[in-house]
Amino acid sequence: MPQDQTKTYQAKVFVTLKPSILDPQGRTVERSLSHLGQQVSGVRVGKYIELQLEGERGEVESRLKDMAENVLSNPVMENVRWELEEAALEPA
Amino acid sequence: MPQDQTKTYQAKVFVTLKPSILDPQGRTVERSLSHLGQQVSGVRVGKYIELQLEGERGEVESRLKDMAENVLSNPVMENVRWELEEAALEPA
Repeated sequence: MPQDQTKTYQAKVFVTLKPSILDPQGRTVERSLSHLGQQVSGVRVGKYIELQLEGERGEVESRLKDMAENVLSNPVMENVRWELEEAALEPA
Repeated sequence: MPQDQTKTYQAKVFVTLKPSILDPQGRTVERSLSHLGQQVSGVRVGKYIELQLEGERGEVESRLKDMAENVLSNPVMENVRWELEEAALEPA
């Protein structure tokens, strides 16, 4: 059975305001778009964070969960989700 | 052949700084994580925007492309990509 290997992983973290929290930035974008003739609704502005981690898959997943929930987002006001994939090898 | 129908679509827009642009916010996050004992690299902080549009699929796609490229992002400094899907029906 192959041993779990240390690899470089690319993580993508999506932080969004909870639906019950007002989003003034989103409202502003919505009004600006409306003034430009673009009718849209429900604009919510969140954060999209990319980062790289090294380690074994399970350990990296657990570190990413910890960072996403406790550092990159505010659990009182925000929801967070993330994706993890092996980083593409850099061209030499 | 079914006619193209007016529907509500949910759009997700991802705005990231171009790789050549320095990201001081990302550097700060990286240092903060390092002080907390989390070694990560290549932290980049972008925006994640959700919005809803109504219309026919083709027209909505073209409006979204216009908004994403010309309003929601700055083409000089940022890259932008987006996803579009039919919005789930709200429970009555």
